[in-house]
Amino acid sequence: MPTRVLAFDGDDTLWHNESRFHLTQSELRELLRRHVPDADVDGHLFEVEMRNLALYGYGVKAFTLSMLETAIELTDGRIPAADLQVILGWGKRMLGAPTELLDGVHETLLDISARYSLLLITKGDLFDQEGKLARSGLAELFSGVEILSDKTVDSYRSLMRRRGIEPEEFVMVGNSLRSDIAPVVALGARAVHIPYAVTWNHEHMPDESLPPSGWYRLDGIGRLGELLESIDTPPAERS
Amino acid sequence: MPTRVLAFDGDDTLWHNESRFHLTQSELRELLRRHVPDADVDGHLFEVEMRNLALYGYGVKAFTLSMLETAIELTDGRIPAADLQVILGWGKRMLGAPTELLDGVHETLLDISARYSLLLITKGDLFDQEGKLARSGLAELFSGVEILSDKTVDSYRSLMRRRGIEPEEFVMVGNSLRSDIAPVVALGARAVHIPYAVTWNHEHMPDESLPPSGWYRLDGIGRLGELLESIDTPPAERS
Repeated sequence: MPTRVLAFDGDDTLWHNESRFHLTQSELRELLRRHVPDADVDGHLFEVEMRNLALYGYGVKAFTLSMLETAIELTDGRIPAADLQVILGWGKRMLGAPTELLDGVHETLLDISARYSLLLITKGDLFDQEGKLARSGLAELFSGVEILSDKTVDSYRSLMRRRGIEPEEFVMVGNSLRSDIAPVVALGARAVHIPYAVTWNHEHMPDESLPPSGWYRLDGIGRLGELLESIDTPPAERS
Repeated sequence: MPTRVLAFDGDDTLWHNESRFHLTQSELRELLRRHVPDADVDGHLFEVEMRNLALYGYGVKAFTLSMLETAIELTDGRIPAADLQVILGWGKRMLGAPTELLDGVHETLLDISARYSLLLITKGDLFDQEGKLARSGLAELFSGVEILSDKTVDSYRSLMRRRGIEPEEFVMVGNSLRSDIAPVVALGARAVHIPYAVTWNHEHMPDESLPPSGWYRLDGIGRLGELLESIDTPPAERS
């Protein structure tokens, strides 16, 4: 069955995202160094984020709340409220930031959307993701948008069932092995991994833990059309 | 065309919600009274929430961030971080609270789900709303769940189009005139207003600003089945 539905992750696949978190996190390190020079800010923040994941889910608001909690805990409550106000401001800056597309995204999607039905499947904060999509200028290229609270085998399965998509005709494109590749391959669909320069700890996954087949890797989105054609062409027909 | 799809709002229609915000807000007043006895906490918080709405959207995380901002602003940054930590804890308590159904909800939905296709249409934080639905024990009664970032004429229109629902066969049940009744009636569908004891300022709307027909009001969910039957029965057939 040839590929019919091509689904894309948004964050760090179509537009830059993790880099805004990284930038803000380095500002947090700077700010807290003035109060607790020896603290392991990154380590503690990650611990707080993981502790809060089941209550907060993903996204900028969750990240902001976890930064505030980290700042208060690491300083034993000695941090002045004015510094916490600065952290609140960082969260707002992140939420209001323009959507910066990755190289080649606009051209590739324009080209590919003529041949496949495009779906956007992102996770995180509903409000923030809708805003980013609206500001991206890509919205009209997608026949559907799904914002999930998490990307698991179950959530992909129910999405595909709801939309009447067979695994054999579905290809997912994304930067996270954990969220975009592994659960999709587990369902018998195919996936294309396009790594991003920075990956959040939580999304890390060694290549070896994935099945050896059913997924592909590209350096950038530019050659995606070519790869998809080769996937759907039986070996005998290839020149 | 008889009613086929019956859609319910979640917060304060099926389960208590605004009351957890009210309770927390009264705790915030108590806490801030110790620092600024004369401050208008409710007024300032509402102002901050409205200012942040376009960036944060709805939900508990947005509310928590706005409470923190209010506390810092009203005390001119003099509030100790330990008090802000208490506010962070209130947000977590709200997110982890069990889903308390309103009186009569479970029986009514069980009864009605045999005759109509039930849809849940809520707005707010995706992660929190999914959690509340999962804990409500009602999930299996719904044929679909839609979590919207806001409830407007446009968002209802696109939802109905996406699901192939005609306005004439759609009835929305909810507690907010602004979010559940007015936009639905504007699309030519019908709506049932079931007021809740407490309404958030932002959702207030005078009855007079609604069209005189196309919507109904009930004191509680218990008589909903009866009302729906009378709506679909031509006057001549009524005994």
